[in-house]
Amino acid sequence: MDSSFDSLVRTLAKLPGLGRRSAERAALALVRQPTGLLASLVAALQRAAEEVRLCSLCGALTTQGHDPCRLCTDPARDASMLCVVEEPGDILAMERSGGFRGRYHALLGKLSPARATGPADLRVRELAARAAAGGFREIILAISTDVEGDATAAYVAETLRETGVTVTRLAFGLPADSGVGYSDPLTLKRALGGRQAV
Amino acid sequence: MDSSFDSLVRTLAKLPGLGRRSAERAALALVRQPTGLLASLVAALQRAAEEVRLCSLCGALTTQGHDPCRLCTDPARDASMLCVVEEPGDILAMERSGGFRGRYHALLGKLSPARATGPADLRVRELAARAAAGGFREIILAISTDVEGDATAAYVAETLRETGVTVTRLAFGLPADSGVGYSDPLTLKRALGGRQAV
Repeated sequence: MDSSFDSLVRTLAKLPGLGRRSAERAALALVRQPTGLLASLVAALQRAAEEVRLCSLCGALTTQGHDPCRLCTDPARDASMLCVVEEPGDILAMERSGGFRGRYHALLGKLSPARATGPADLRVRELAARAAAGGFREIILAISTDVEGDATAAYVAETLRETGVTVTRLAFGLPADSGVGYSDPLTLKRALGGRQAV
Repeated sequence: MDSSFDSLVRTLAKLPGLGRRSAERAALALVRQPTGLLASLVAALQRAAEEVRLCSLCGALTTQGHDPCRLCTDPARDASMLCVVEEPGDILAMERSGGFRGRYHALLGKLSPARATGPADLRVRELAARAAAGGFREIILAISTDVEGDATAAYVAETLRETGVTVTRLAFGLPADSGVGYSDPLTLKRALGGRQAV
């Protein structure tokens, strides 16, 4: 009915998590108040485009003028531990967990035949170079536990083998606040395989 | 961790349908490719802000320079039938249904104590003026069937009473592709009350 409205809907629908209908609802909310929400979103996007960068060393979110990022340069962090993740957002999640205080390396993806993402599309060469440069006792693969994540973890581990650094992967098991009756068979099988003495 | 990124996440989270987590995922997708998706979104937003307007007569989406809108001026549409909806998006939905070929009037909201939306916040005065100006045989209330929609429909019907125009409301009943076993008690009760000879 209105091409600049439709074009806004189509662009919003490209964002992860927004389908056609929710993109239409979001676009309606935006054009309902073009001097309010729409203007703030344009300003926030422009500021992010100017200021937000990915750290050239680890791939985490950082700001213009802070590259390498705070996580890479903070002397209070353990420089002998490296955590490999898929996406910058995974670094945010790891930091929220409070369980890791070392350095990071984001691959910026995972191996995926469906999305035509191969080894050359991931930051694996950069990871191998960091590992070969020395200084790491352990490299932890914090990679998703689906088929594509398993393939990515296997490929990364194989690539790192010749560096001699210990490579580990996050434990498989039951998630927090869950129960045996709610768990799928593969999760249970893996949780059994990784059972620990109490 | 990064204020311009956080500010983008907070702004995106104000869009209907995007929670905190999905706003973060969307923001990450945007900053991952600032010259791609982010730039197209800024362009689409700026174009929509310049070009998209709400029709001053009916409240439908229209473009700069087309006010009143195509729906208000199309001589092929039945100018004696008026359909009252809550939002501009409801007009899109009615048009997709193909069941109505008259004029529209969007209230731009519904009565809602929870959101502090009262009669003065809705375009009811404009509706009463259109109805009093004459020319309408019937005014159809296509308003949601929740408590707030019921209150809005009752208020609008009461306001229109003195114009003498017939006011109807969309039928209550079973939705398409549904079954008795899946329907809630109120829907079933209303569908029974509105049963028709076959």
